[in-house]
Amino acid sequence: MKCRVCGQPASISLRAYNTALCADDFVFFLERRVSDTIKKYHLIDKDDTPVVAVSGGKDSLSVWHILNRQGHKADGVYVDLGIGEYSRESLEKIKKTAETLQCKVFVFHIRNTFGRGIDEIAKATRRVPCSACGMIKRYVMNKVCIDKNYNVLITGHNLDDEAAALMGNLLYWKEEYLWKKSPLLEGHEGHLSRKVKPLFLCSEREMAAYALISGIDYIYEECPFSLHAKSLTYKRILNSLEENSPGTKLQFIKGYLKMIKGTEEAPKNITYCSSCGYPCYGDKCNMCRLLDRFHIGNKIDFDVYG
Amino acid sequence: MKCRVCGQPASISLRAYNTALCADDFVFFLERRVSDTIKKYHLIDKDDTPVVAVSGGKDSLSVWHILNRQGHKADGVYVDLGIGEYSRESLEKIKKTAETLQCKVFVFHIRNTFGRGIDEIAKATRRVPCSACGMIKRYVMNKVCIDKNYNVLITGHNLDDEAAALMGNLLYWKEEYLWKKSPLLEGHEGHLSRKVKPLFLCSEREMAAYALISGIDYIYEECPFSLHAKSLTYKRILNSLEENSPGTKLQFIKGYLKMIKGTEEAPKNITYCSSCGYPCYGDKCNMCRLLDRFHIGNKIDFDVYG
Repeated sequence: MKCRVCGQPASISLRAYNTALCADDFVFFLERRVSDTIKKYHLIDKDDTPVVAVSGGKDSLSVWHILNRQGHKADGVYVDLGIGEYSRESLEKIKKTAETLQCKVFVFHIRNTFGRGIDEIAKATRRVPCSACGMIKRYVMNKVCIDKNYNVLITGHNLDDEAAALMGNLLYWKEEYLWKKSPLLEGHEGHLSRKVKPLFLCSEREMAAYALISGIDYIYEECPFSLHAKSLTYKRILNSLEENSPGTKLQFIKGYLKMIKGTEEAPKNITYCSSCGYPCYGDKCNMCRLLDRFHIGNKIDFDVYG
Repeated sequence: MKCRVCGQPASISLRAYNTALCADDFVFFLERRVSDTIKKYHLIDKDDTPVVAVSGGKDSLSVWHILNRQGHKADGVYVDLGIGEYSRESLEKIKKTAETLQCKVFVFHIRNTFGRGIDEIAKATRRVPCSACGMIKRYVMNKVCIDKNYNVLITGHNLDDEAAALMGNLLYWKEEYLWKKSPLLEGHEGHLSRKVKPLFLCSEREMAAYALISGIDYIYEECPFSLHAKSLTYKRILNSLEENSPGTKLQFIKGYLKMIKGTEEAPKNITYCSSCGYPCYGDKCNMCRLLDRFHIGNKIDFDVYG
């Protein structure tokens, strides 16, 4: 198998694109794919001040890396969930990347604020860990943007993440999420940051290959709480379909984007939390209620590295 | 495991309904489910003259059986595809059922009209067999309704058929089919019969159990051309999801029906075939073009049994 571009031996075959590439040309291809996505969907402007939500995994560290290579000077933000070795190792990889990129990274330690890890918070509030984690992360990531003057939050969601989430939303027709899976979610000035997903069209396999070839030092383990997540079942299913019909995941997501084009509605009846001022349903947002629950004032502090 | 209704040993567990039933109560349950579906979605009125599209399989023979038990006097129509033993055995089961039900069955033999089976027709017209078969069946079933004065065509599509088709339409966002998978498709007087699917909410497993318990003599084999159909892959996937989360298929289909409710549009710009007068795209319908292709006049004749 030869590289479609240079004719040297290929390192990776990309059946969805009916091609194969050597390591160097694959890196060029993937970075080009990301910059094309950013341009096509108007994700980041040259005047923007972006910050990347990092987890220590291949996707978020790679997108951080790519953006900085492409001249979008981006800092990072990390929520340390307090899950023993997994969280410690993740933070270490993140600090190392921040150093390499000569960027800052803001770190919110859940244990420092709540005196307990995500598992205990979840138990105490009768949520599953992924639900408590999602809520806290959304809040903290937004807070960094508002407080530290970043106007766009970058996440590392890849094609497989998006396709799996879409499949789940379709199987159960979750209308509250179903038509909102765009690579760009607009913010509201002073309350909510814009959120964008530059890896929307890059598969998990492509991102793993990119991180490997580029020498990005990421954490291989998945979050221990995610191991039984339905999203992993949907990913397996989509990969088996992809195996038989290469390009299925891309078609699924691109068809969806075409479908929702022009249907984005302005958000209705936004209310803001009476305590912190962030958008929420009802009088008080879930994070402020959680802080109340543990008798903690609204003190979300960050450590800063780099 | 005991029957939820009578306390006798259960014959079938229905995890989607979190219940288990004995043979008699299951038959009652399933027939009730069908009559409830017919009422709820206004599929068949007492003044209607229905005809059932039968294949010889468990679903179509069971729905034929159920309708006649419930007082909807329904005849049958069968398209003999000319696939050797498979077609011969199917026809035999159908004639036997017609006799039991004391109904008529109209049979269209593809070989009698075209001088060849569906596989040769498909090859000659560069279609896949399932595409040629679908086109011919739709035409012939409609012709029986129009010519023989049946105002509603019943098909045996079950929950698994519908969920698999919906999954395929969603994965590739086939908008021309996606929002039209209702259990009732309206006709146009004199041109196109109404089509309804009373088994829409009954799973494949439930229908197999019903046919078995009721002693319905059906053909076990699937059509040999369908063995590699993508719909079988989607059925396997949906069954694996159902295994982990009973009720998934029902939720998927019911959520979809809720979604499309009220969005049904009146068909636009209907044109009619200049040769036979049935609805079509363009000047001439595919069936008339196929008849032209083989220099056959518009002579679609039926054998009648029973």
